[in-house]
Amino acid sequence: MTATILFAAGEARWTIYEPLLRDALQALKVDYVLRTDLPPDEVDFVVYAPDSDLQDFTPFTRLKAVLSLWAGVERITGNETITVPLTRMVDEDGLTQGMIEWVTGHVLRHHLGMDAQIVNPDHRWEPNAPPVASDRPVTILGLGTLGLACARALRGLGFPVTGWSRRPRAVANMRCFHGEDGLEKALSGAQIVVLLLPETPDTRHLINADRLSLLAPGAFLINPGRGPLIDEEAVLAALDSGQLAHATLDVFPVEPLPQDHAFWTHPKVTVTPHIASETRPQTAARVVAENIRRGTLDHKLLHVVDREAGY
Amino acid sequence: MTATILFAAGEARWTIYEPLLRDALQALKVDYVLRTDLPPDEVDFVVYAPDSDLQDFTPFTRLKAVLSLWAGVERITGNETITVPLTRMVDEDGLTQGMIEWVTGHVLRHHLGMDAQIVNPDHRWEPNAPPVASDRPVTILGLGTLGLACARALRGLGFPVTGWSRRPRAVANMRCFHGEDGLEKALSGAQIVVLLLPETPDTRHLINADRLSLLAPGAFLINPGRGPLIDEEAVLAALDSGQLAHATLDVFPVEPLPQDHAFWTHPKVTVTPHIASETRPQTAARVVAENIRRGTLDHKLLHVVDREAGY
Repeated sequence: MTATILFAAGEARWTIYEPLLRDALQALKVDYVLRTDLPPDEVDFVVYAPDSDLQDFTPFTRLKAVLSLWAGVERITGNETITVPLTRMVDEDGLTQGMIEWVTGHVLRHHLGMDAQIVNPDHRWEPNAPPVASDRPVTILGLGTLGLACARALRGLGFPVTGWSRRPRAVANMRCFHGEDGLEKALSGAQIVVLLLPETPDTRHLINADRLSLLAPGAFLINPGRGPLIDEEAVLAALDSGQLAHATLDVFPVEPLPQDHAFWTHPKVTVTPHIASETRPQTAARVVAENIRRGTLDHKLLHVVDREAGY
Repeated sequence: MTATILFAAGEARWTIYEPLLRDALQALKVDYVLRTDLPPDEVDFVVYAPDSDLQDFTPFTRLKAVLSLWAGVERITGNETITVPLTRMVDEDGLTQGMIEWVTGHVLRHHLGMDAQIVNPDHRWEPNAPPVASDRPVTILGLGTLGLACARALRGLGFPVTGWSRRPRAVANMRCFHGEDGLEKALSGAQIVVLLLPETPDTRHLINADRLSLLAPGAFLINPGRGPLIDEEAVLAALDSGQLAHATLDVFPVEPLPQDHAFWTHPKVTVTPHIASETRPQTAARVVAENIRRGTLDHKLLHVVDREAGY
């Protein structure tokens, strides 16, 4: 059969997703029609986003599924006109792989001291090679899927990685600590610290003045985890004293980071706009295409939302 | 025996090397005395650099070896007062590992588009995630020790790597091309190109206007190989037209890069001061310490210079 697909996730996304969806559908040999306007009673699949203009699905009489491009579906689950399976975006490739790349990239950036060359208005030629990675201890707080994936990538490049998690974990070829006592050991002497913990009452302001003082002087702090993991005042003080050489932060309690926040103007802070781990159109398009392929064959769809549970 | 070691490689290097040599000697359990002033007739080993004030080795009557911190020894081999073995620095760990880190770091930097966040005076919050590495084809020209090591590291992070070498080479899990025809295929559609070729008459200006036009529009050029590999005028023109988005260059026909060179002020060029692959004090100190250990045991020294051959 030919899959008739309505793209109803907005103009801006259409520009990005149209070529990617066509490539992905073609790669899966799906016979399809893909448009942003179609008579509702001819549509088999709706590619959707919660902020779409389309809210009333009643006229879509032959619809097989609604495929959302967003991970969060709290704005769709209440829509009672959707009576067919609803899938949410689970872009494992994009999320985990993206985090590995962002973390490895920023660890290498600080390790190599790149910023001195990226911004070099005085054209200084100062060939001070950094130590090799094996002399640059990195500590990762949080050993979930993302923390372990990043640890593996950094170890592969030669960095000695120490991991910490709340509960005991044994990971091959990695120095691991856990619990309150272990945290002190994990942070002591670390030159680069990466935060990949979840946000819980226990992890709020985990990185405070006392813990920052345990690091090697001139250490680098990298936070792609959650904004509240750090005590912002303590981080700013450590940057000003030189205890921290630089902080690269991707997540904040309020996002976008307010324009008057001190992080924007501090010369030792790099703000990245919550991009460390995000759905990537390229990988997301493949997930949607795979679900359309499955739908046309009446196979089980991926990532179907349980509307009672709400996710 | 106690190894009596004179450090005669200058004040500036002493500051860097003293703690590293002590650590390295201790790690090898060498019993030693290390100073910058010692009676010549008590010295067993001289840690040396060609630009040292020490040029007359005649008073060093019990000397076992001269251990140079430099790779190049053309300024020492003519010194006829050196009658004991002379070793040069071969810092394989530092050189290869350093290149892997520099190349991987700058590939990730361009891949992630980091510069937009490192220099962001308008405090723009623009969460445009890059594609994942598997959608970012990288081409490495040159498949010697360094090229292969970098290819392996980039593949490990998920980048599809294409390699090119003058003569045929088969490398597992890598698309490889060779020769003149192969070069066109290797460059076609590449989004990031890394130059790791030697400097020969054949490789001079290998990267010219024609070859730059084969790359994906907005590609990145990374040159840690040799300065003359690129036609500088063609690279500047490609940057201005947008065919190249950025060039990160570590090597130049004249170094330090002259202050009036266009690369210093071009907004799409990053100059790094020949640091991609350099002797690292930490790994170099270990090589020197290992030679002192061997010398005290009358074992064969590493990297002894053949003074007739000149290296």
